[in-house]
Amino acid sequence: MFDARFRSELEDLFRWRRDVRRFRVDPLPPDMMEELIRLAVMAPSVGNSQPWRFVRVDDPVRRADVRADFEACNRHALASYDGDRAERYARLKLSGLDRAPEHLAVFADGATRHGHGLGRRTMPETLTWSVVGAVHALWLAARAHGVGVGWVSIIDPDRIRAILDVPVDWLLVAYLCLGHPEEEHTDPELERAGWQARIPSQAIVLRR
Amino acid sequence: MFDARFRSELEDLFRWRRDVRRFRVDPLPPDMMEELIRLAVMAPSVGNSQPWRFVRVDDPVRRADVRADFEACNRHALASYDGDRAERYARLKLSGLDRAPEHLAVFADGATRHGHGLGRRTMPETLTWSVVGAVHALWLAARAHGVGVGWVSIIDPDRIRAILDVPVDWLLVAYLCLGHPEEEHTDPELERAGWQARIPSQAIVLRR
Repeated sequence: MFDARFRSELEDLFRWRRDVRRFRVDPLPPDMMEELIRLAVMAPSVGNSQPWRFVRVDDPVRRADVRADFEACNRHALASYDGDRAERYARLKLSGLDRAPEHLAVFADGATRHGHGLGRRTMPETLTWSVVGAVHALWLAARAHGVGVGWVSIIDPDRIRAILDVPVDWLLVAYLCLGHPEEEHTDPELERAGWQARIPSQAIVLRR
Repeated sequence: MFDARFRSELEDLFRWRRDVRRFRVDPLPPDMMEELIRLAVMAPSVGNSQPWRFVRVDDPVRRADVRADFEACNRHALASYDGDRAERYARLKLSGLDRAPEHLAVFADGATRHGHGLGRRTMPETLTWSVVGAVHALWLAARAHGVGVGWVSIIDPDRIRAILDVPVDWLLVAYLCLGHPEEEHTDPELERAGWQARIPSQAIVLRR
């Protein structure tokens, strides 16, 4: 079905799929967000429960509240580091909330009855994990369209749920910034900044 | 960077990436598992923590123990349904543990110090979620190589960790069966079996 040329391009896609925090402010093409969500929901889900819920955040007041929450959480995080590590943390740019033209919050609907509970009796987290797969699919689809994505996790999930006024059963999985990247890299920003290097793959595989 | 032809093939890949439970017994090509793991670890991870740990399970005794655990958990699950739903559940084939030539358990190392905690102070689950992304990447890479993957979640994660004798800080994310698919489908088995249909995408997007 798929040939060596496609596999090579897929590997390129995996390599270029980076967490982007530096965006151009120009808008994405019309219907791009709909297209990315259409592709994201082709991801697998436990029991075919499709628990992903997407919230497009355009309201400037809500965006400002999200950004204020990020800044508070980021200050707390900085205070947890000492010395050289704190200096390095302070220099990192950890979100593109200031400039990204699109903000997309992705939740898992913990109350969904779709899927009839199949596959999540002993591993209930698989419901949330299904949404993570959809986020990864959206990220790859975006990159294939030349769109950069950044996943912001330095936020208080309950506070974000309140800001966005969504049902209490919805669990925040990802708050995403999307837009055209200002720069392109094949290595992670945290590697370039000396925060955390790649670990060797032989360290992560066991035989049993 | 990526053209319309590649994007069309990527959509095909998303569509053909199915949960496979019916495998041929013939082995995968040599080094295929190494290749799939090499591609999987290109997935994003919080703080670049790379918490994925892979366990290739070849020992027939351990495989039999895993299969016995699945069968026990599946009996309990069946007992939780009534009437027509129970009959439908009983007819489903929910794992390929009996025939798949490769078994791969994927864990999140909850004790890793890589990443120095970045990005997971307020959302600690992002460590585990990073591993989910790697599983999704591996699944896509496998399908691009013509290899089918099935994710078994009807198992007791603590029991699987004990059977595989891995560190207690490792959290089971996925137990995967891999092999050549016996049949090919673009629709989920649970849709074909009348368990859970596709839900309309307009039901899952809000504006705020």
